[in-house]
Amino acid sequence: MGKLDWATGDCDVKLKVLYCGICHSDLHFIKNEWGMTRYPFVPGHEIVGVVMEVGSKVQKFKVGDKAGVGGIAGSCQSCDNCSNNLECYCPNLIVIHGSTYHDGSITYGGYSDIMVADEHYVVRIPDKLPLDASAPLLCAGITVYSPFKYFGFDKPGMHVGVVGLGGLGHLAVKFAKAFGVKVTVISTSPSKKKEAIENLGADSFLVSRDPLQMEAAMGTMDGIIDTVSAIHPLLPLINLLKSHGKLVMLGAPEKPLELPVFPLLLGRKTVVGSSGGGMKEMQEMIDFAAEHNITSAIEVIPIDYLNTAMERLVKADVRYRFVIDIGNTLKAT
Amino acid sequence: MGKLDWATGDCDVKLKVLYCGICHSDLHFIKNEWGMTRYPFVPGHEIVGVVMEVGSKVQKFKVGDKAGVGGIAGSCQSCDNCSNNLECYCPNLIVIHGSTYHDGSITYGGYSDIMVADEHYVVRIPDKLPLDASAPLLCAGITVYSPFKYFGFDKPGMHVGVVGLGGLGHLAVKFAKAFGVKVTVISTSPSKKKEAIENLGADSFLVSRDPLQMEAAMGTMDGIIDTVSAIHPLLPLINLLKSHGKLVMLGAPEKPLELPVFPLLLGRKTVVGSSGGGMKEMQEMIDFAAEHNITSAIEVIPIDYLNTAMERLVKADVRYRFVIDIGNTLKAT
Repeated sequence: MGKLDWATGDCDVKLKVLYCGICHSDLHFIKNEWGMTRYPFVPGHEIVGVVMEVGSKVQKFKVGDKAGVGGIAGSCQSCDNCSNNLECYCPNLIVIHGSTYHDGSITYGGYSDIMVADEHYVVRIPDKLPLDASAPLLCAGITVYSPFKYFGFDKPGMHVGVVGLGGLGHLAVKFAKAFGVKVTVISTSPSKKKEAIENLGADSFLVSRDPLQMEAAMGTMDGIIDTVSAIHPLLPLINLLKSHGKLVMLGAPEKPLELPVFPLLLGRKTVVGSSGGGMKEMQEMIDFAAEHNITSAIEVIPIDYLNTAMERLVKADVRYRFVIDIGNTLKAT
Repeated sequence: MGKLDWATGDCDVKLKVLYCGICHSDLHFIKNEWGMTRYPFVPGHEIVGVVMEVGSKVQKFKVGDKAGVGGIAGSCQSCDNCSNNLECYCPNLIVIHGSTYHDGSITYGGYSDIMVADEHYVVRIPDKLPLDASAPLLCAGITVYSPFKYFGFDKPGMHVGVVGLGGLGHLAVKFAKAFGVKVTVISTSPSKKKEAIENLGADSFLVSRDPLQMEAAMGTMDGIIDTVSAIHPLLPLINLLKSHGKLVMLGAPEKPLELPVFPLLLGRKTVVGSSGGGMKEMQEMIDFAAEHNITSAIEVIPIDYLNTAMERLVKADVRYRFVIDIGNTLKAT
């Protein structure tokens, strides 16, 4: 959580940061589009590195271990959510950047050469996983993995739709295939069909702007993972669901979306939000990813390319995640 | 389902209709506000009466039994929903009025002296229940009972909000108290506080237009039963939910509502629709109501008061359900 003095507390792990993914939310935070940014602000919550120091009470890590930190720096550890390993939904969640830590300091994220974090919020990165391509698992990965598990979309026979083929969406397809479920990518861009099916292994592809394709697929999906954070219509997606199907929103459009209620009533259909996952699930996801060779498609960049990368990110011009090579390109101060 | 020749098929029960409740949806159908009404249209889906004839294969009923019919005249009896006793969500659901029955005839509802229905879609009315005040259970009752059971709001320790104190809302409060859960009525009308708490036994009352009251109750509810069919803001309701809380929509506003997505994400909160319940659950609900002395507050009217009642219904000028005294005021043709 990057306390200014970088002191490693009794329960803390100090990481030498090697890679940090660039999440689209970094952009929202930098520009204060959600109205909650506190400057100076250091983004980055897809952080992997090597342990360089551990506090006296640390049990899970030793110097030299590969480790990762996601969006959570701390939580109350006593509420219902914390008790159920759902720290991400703790009402007193301390985000890894721009939150006030227990000691009153402000947290700083992973666009940094050093990261100090309570070991409870640090995960082990199995040797099998490449560090650069596993960084995005810490946010994009857990964000798509958690709803599969929580809503039971990981069960054989399920048919899951994935809306939007970006950082989150491409990982959702990879996890879906690893779970052995049928996955359909839903996108505004017909040009993504080849990539979705041939490279990522999606079972089918729907162009959301094609009413005939959408109509033909009505009532066929158990769940939909909607990764789009732009304003978009929900009705065509609700119509794709079977009765009792669930539309899981992962993106956060700046304005409210239009919700037609009648179609929800007719099939006891659900629209639900989801954000991240708890630390137990985070480790499970990382281990599952290692077991099934799931990593993010990435473009590794040096730190001085960051502003250009941000401009390209606005245009969704990346397949599918920028990862900053912190270890080789950011000089320690 | 009121076949024109009133013939009682092998699996059918013929009822002498004694009472029929007036549901707000009758009004929508009469005026074709949902664009699906087929004229001539006979409304009414809260029907109770006495069995006057049974088909040769009928097993559950004999002549003289008290029985009820709700919104369902038929379903496919083979889909996943029908197999799970969720006939109300069958894609080939045959509604009790204005649908095409298996034999090609159009179904007619319970504003009628006679009702013929397949016994599968007929429930027993226990002797303990008064026939007039139990009629609204067949629609309003099951509509509020089902989400309590399906979403687990009936468990001790739950805190449930009920939005709107009308035909559905007042029954939701009664069921909630019978389940032993805490219930808070949320209404635009401060004038309903006394009624909600003193007469219906609600634990607390929130005026939805009072920001201070609403803010003080933020994050306190496990579920909300929203019975309002007018356009209304969802954000204040979503804010009342704990994380993982569920906002259950029972009303069908004619236009889409505004759905803010970010607040759903932060607490994995749900907006879900629900309509009615299956026949097994309908019988369970009726039996539960009998056991706990739950009936609707009603105003019994003669059939020739119907048009006036409809005008009063538009103004919500009824506590809480009109019930037509069919038996004593409608002459058989």
